[in-house]
Amino acid sequence: MTSTTSTRVDSASPVETAALRRAFELARRGPAMDANPRVGCVLLTPDGTTIGEGWHRGAGTPHAEVAALADAAALGNDTRGATAVVTLEPCNHTGRTGPCSEALIAARVRRVVVSVEDPNPLAAGGAARLRAEGIDVLAGVLVDEGRQVLGTWVHAVERDRPFVTLKLASTLDGRIAAADGSSRWITGEVARQHAHDLRAEVDAIAVGTGTALADDPSLTARTADGSLHGHQPLRVVVGLRDLPADAALRGPGGDLVQVRSHDPHEVLAELGRRGVRHVLVEGGPTLAAAFLRAGLVDEVHAYLAPVLLGAGRPAVDDLGITSIDGALRLVTRSVVPLGPDVLVVATPAAIPEASPEASPEAQES
Amino acid sequence: MTSTTSTRVDSASPVETAALRRAFELARRGPAMDANPRVGCVLLTPDGTTIGEGWHRGAGTPHAEVAALADAAALGNDTRGATAVVTLEPCNHTGRTGPCSEALIAARVRRVVVSVEDPNPLAAGGAARLRAEGIDVLAGVLVDEGRQVLGTWVHAVERDRPFVTLKLASTLDGRIAAADGSSRWITGEVARQHAHDLRAEVDAIAVGTGTALADDPSLTARTADGSLHGHQPLRVVVGLRDLPADAALRGPGGDLVQVRSHDPHEVLAELGRRGVRHVLVEGGPTLAAAFLRAGLVDEVHAYLAPVLLGAGRPAVDDLGITSIDGALRLVTRSVVPLGPDVLVVATPAAIPEASPEASPEAQES
Ligand SMILES: NC(=O)c1ccc[n+]([C@@H]2O[C@H](COP(=O)([O-])OP(=O)(O)OC[C@H]3O[C@@H](n4cnc5c(N)ncnc54)[C@H](OP(=O)(O)O)[C@@H]3O)[C@@H](O)[C@H]2O)c1
Ligand SMILES: NC(=O)c1ccc[n+]([C@@H]2O[C@H](COP(=O)([O-])OP(=O)(O)OC[C@H]3O[C@@H](n4cnc5c(N)ncnc54)[C@H](OP(=O)(O)O)[C@@H]3O)[C@@H](O)[C@H]2O)c1
Repeated sequence: MTSTTSTRVDSASPVETAALRRAFELARRGPAMDANPRVGCVLLTPDGTTIGEGWHRGAGTPHAEVAALADAAALGNDTRGATAVVTLEPCNHTGRTGPCSEALIAARVRRVVVSVEDPNPLAAGGAARLRAEGIDVLAGVLVDEGRQVLGTWVHAVERDRPFVTLKLASTLDGRIAAADGSSRWITGEVARQHAHDLRAEVDAIAVGTGTALADDPSLTARTADGSLHGHQPLRVVVGLRDLPADAALRGPGGDLVQVRSHDPHEVLAELGRRGVRHVLVEGGPTLAAAFLRAGLVDEVHAYLAPVLLGAGRPAVDDLGITSIDGALRLVTRSVVPLGPDVLVVATPAAIPEASPEASPEAQES
Repeated sequence: MTSTTSTRVDSASPVETAALRRAFELARRGPAMDANPRVGCVLLTPDGTTIGEGWHRGAGTPHAEVAALADAAALGNDTRGATAVVTLEPCNHTGRTGPCSEALIAARVRRVVVSVEDPNPLAAGGAARLRAEGIDVLAGVLVDEGRQVLGTWVHAVERDRPFVTLKLASTLDGRIAAADGSSRWITGEVARQHAHDLRAEVDAIAVGTGTALADDPSLTARTADGSLHGHQPLRVVVGLRDLPADAALRGPGGDLVQVRSHDPHEVLAELGRRGVRHVLVEGGPTLAAAFLRAGLVDEVHAYLAPVLLGAGRPAVDDLGITSIDGALRLVTRSVVPLGPDVLVVATPAAIPEASPEASPEAQES
């Protein structure tokens, strides 16, 4: 799960560190949303010359290590004695492709430098397998950057459930709708576009039936000109009540799933089965409170508008907290002015890792 | 009230503009809190040489123009034919000192360049008096900067009541206390120290009896080491209930005044009589709502902490707003991260002038 310093018997050379940064770049070329993680690999001769590069292009295609070995072969380069620099521990399991550990052994590499150790119990064991063959393995190099490249994938695998971002869009006095239920619009255009761009980066968006019935939202990711983004997240409605046949949620956009449950754990289990790594919970206050009470919020995105209402629906329903000592205290990751509004990104204190959306500076605080 | 462009028959020369900027600097040397405004004056020969400088050092001392004329005399400089560059229109009334218009006439200046015209009906008329003597008067130069130097004084005089800053310190979900009334602390140390520094800049702090009785606050301005700031604002409690004899509000700090009324207009009238130009309303939600409903809030300082409570006292009580269309929309002046918290400074849209606390960039937006 965590980078074991015990494996850091030696350290990465400057050339290897540079190659790892290059491997991060390669990894980022992979699809942001995929069942598999984004991984990059660079092959070096003992004297530090790059002889092959590869990255994973998505589920069903070769893993990064195999792609890099193929690249070296295509270039006529000999991989014997080489060092493989990879952003994630080589897998040791046969899925749609063979184990990368075996491919590296067959290629006769002598050393493997790894950033993040594989948190996936199914795929882990690659380092041990390599070491058993006498290959020198160094893991835990530039782990923070490595985890950032992996994004929500690493959170999802470690916790065996999707990463949950809770979005709130409220007034300065914490209202997400006026007394009559009207809530369009509290935030301004810049903030709303920002929220749409986030929708385009997640696998699923969830709301409660209360919001679905009150607002008839479409829950699509739209660009500034109003057209649909190329990627549309799965649309998830949580609750028992039926949606009308003409609900906007049934219109153009991502697939629609209704999870007829009040248990956030069940919701996440269902989404996990559907391959969702990152879900954006967009409210309302009942669903937000349910996820918070269950301890299932990994990150809060609070869009705050310079508006006062004095009454109306609060952003979050009762959490069972009665005294200030019991308050749910978060760690601020970033504060982003968005036109007249401001976005505060914060994570529960219990989660030490930086959030994938936070800026690098904020992550260090 | 406003700068009349009709008086801008000519324009300030570069030397005069530079002298006015110098006069702003001089003005800022005056006391920030005083019954009188901060004013600076620079005297120039026709060829642009500075021959005297002055600023107002506080009620009962010479006005800036008189101080500059005295400076010129002390230096043996002849003021005949000079240009007086002043940040505020010379007064035309005899208070504790004589009218500045008469002093400039007696000094035989030929031209007067003015930034802000005097909004005080008692003191205004200086420009007309000078013109009647054939002196060339140019007013309305660098008015934005001139008003900024005058700070809340100009607001207070124009509206004939103190400038009102409403402070809120709330959770991300808009709570200023937990369900059991506990509220210490929602914001962190950096934000609390920032709030103490603001207290040291205002003339008065007001809370309702509800807050006074629930929290027993001392409402003092303290420095980071816990000691009292040199300036302590007047402490104001609004409401009918009596305070206990041992209330912290009766301890060391500014004078204590209880205004036994529920009418914010009466509160401000009483504070105006006591020479208050700038009052900080620190809550609670009842008093905040009363000032907002009366349209008597000039600026909101919302300190927002990355905390969720899900229940408890809302930041602002009912404002009589039922639909989003009736929301009280503010204009964001600045967004200031303060440790884990964030301060949003916003003003009602109806008030076009920038707030005295806002940053220069924010003022231009
Ligand atoms: N400003 C914003 O960003 C924003 C965002 C979203 C919503 N809103 C506003 O929020 C209001 C709707 O609030 P809401 O609280 O009714 O919406 P909600 O949280 O979307 O839906 C609540 C419903 O979800 C179901 N549910 C799911 N999990 C539950 C659980 N653990 N416990 C209880 N019920 C659960 C229940 O419906 P069943 O009876 O069907 O099971 C419940 O009535 C609307 O006015 C909307 O405009 C504003
Ligand atoms: N986090 C924060 O920044 C913060 C700041 C302040 C307060 N608080 C919390 O706020 C809570 C107190 O709330 P609150 O609303 O009772 O406090 P409040 O607004 O300070 O006081 C309310 C009282 O003020 C009087 N009052 C003055 N003008 C009024 C008007 N126009 N209408 C009605 N009453 C008026 C009334 O008392 P009479 O009956 O005596 O006339 C009323 O009961 C406490 O829990 C405190 O901790 C938090």
